[in-house]
Amino acid sequence: MTYDPATRDTILDDTTLAQLFTEARTRNDFSDRPVPEALIRRLYELTKFGPTAVNATPARFVFLTSPEARARLTPFMSGNNAAKTAKAPVNVILATDNDFHQHLDTLFPHAPGAKDWFGDETMRKETAFRNSSLQGGYFMIAARALGLDVGPMSGFDAAGVKAEFFPDSNVEPNFIVNLGYGTDENLFPRSPRLSFEEAATIL
Amino acid sequence: MTYDPATRDTILDDTTLAQLFTEARTRNDFSDRPVPEALIRRLYELTKFGPTAVNATPARFVFLTSPEARARLTPFMSGNNAAKTAKAPVNVILATDNDFHQHLDTLFPHAPGAKDWFGDETMRKETAFRNSSLQGGYFMIAARALGLDVGPMSGFDAAGVKAEFFPDSNVEPNFIVNLGYGTDENLFPRSPRLSFEEAATIL
Repeated sequence: MTYDPATRDTILDDTTLAQLFTEARTRNDFSDRPVPEALIRRLYELTKFGPTAVNATPARFVFLTSPEARARLTPFMSGNNAAKTAKAPVNVILATDNDFHQHLDTLFPHAPGAKDWFGDETMRKETAFRNSSLQGGYFMIAARALGLDVGPMSGFDAAGVKAEFFPDSNVEPNFIVNLGYGTDENLFPRSPRLSFEEAATIL
Repeated sequence: MTYDPATRDTILDDTTLAQLFTEARTRNDFSDRPVPEALIRRLYELTKFGPTAVNATPARFVFLTSPEARARLTPFMSGNNAAKTAKAPVNVILATDNDFHQHLDTLFPHAPGAKDWFGDETMRKETAFRNSSLQGGYFMIAARALGLDVGPMSGFDAAGVKAEFFPDSNVEPNFIVNLGYGTDENLFPRSPRLSFEEAATIL
């Protein structure tokens, strides 16, 4: 481990920032190159360290890699998204465990009884959704940090995916991510972003 | 720009992965070192490129840097969080614009009329919350990529912050992030994470 807290203020070089943010693109097409299981596991081992409220880490990840498993997802994808999932070597169901609080004795050991803070279901689901989505952000940047490309999609039949993949739990799908090594096929020109002044204020 | 798509499969080195994920920690205390405005702007310029549904980018960022502005936030922070915000040089209100769809003619130009897809308020708010939170994930990793530390917090009076900072719009706070250069004061031992088998499945 060469990481030194004394140099924690390092600004990463432009090539790295390009890989993670400025030149990275949502990919709509992927090469045939597979994603090894070891890399999938490594991706989780990075993602898991991103901060979440009370260390709740409510995101759950279903990596669909076999043709049979991926065929179970396809009927629920909307419009063009079905074709996009077919082109990626891995489809990931990024899901939310609305019963995350059952793990807090383990995950948040310095506050025994923390699970009792989440008795209210509305607040618990809001916490689960916020933090599962945060972890979705970590997941996609971690994928890029490992040289992978992503293609996230919200257009799918969530109730159908819930029934097919999570019938017996309080887990529900949040969004779907295509994962692999992207190509430039069907790549749109990059869309504009809001300026700093439109999206931010310094007070 | 030295970024080359042909080398897009680069796995970042362990030191960089440590800075972004494996050794990075939520900080509860910060040094007096200020965060220059140029670095705040650069942080937004990275964050904005993270993928969101229909490029909606619904997150809004209020950077509280002056003592006067920060004092407006303090009364709404719960318990220990008030003291934590006092120690950070910048408090960020990461907020959600529930009327993000009004910008889609600009942000999603290849689908004219996309804003009409979001007439249903429940679906629009869900989209806004999911994608604002995703952007929260990008924001925190981007901060680390710029050598900054973060301390995110959900414990605050959201209705109070809404009334104080966003009284006349459909923007509401999502969560608060302390931003600056962290110290090791009040740093808990790292809490456990779920194993791959507990949080993920490969099918």
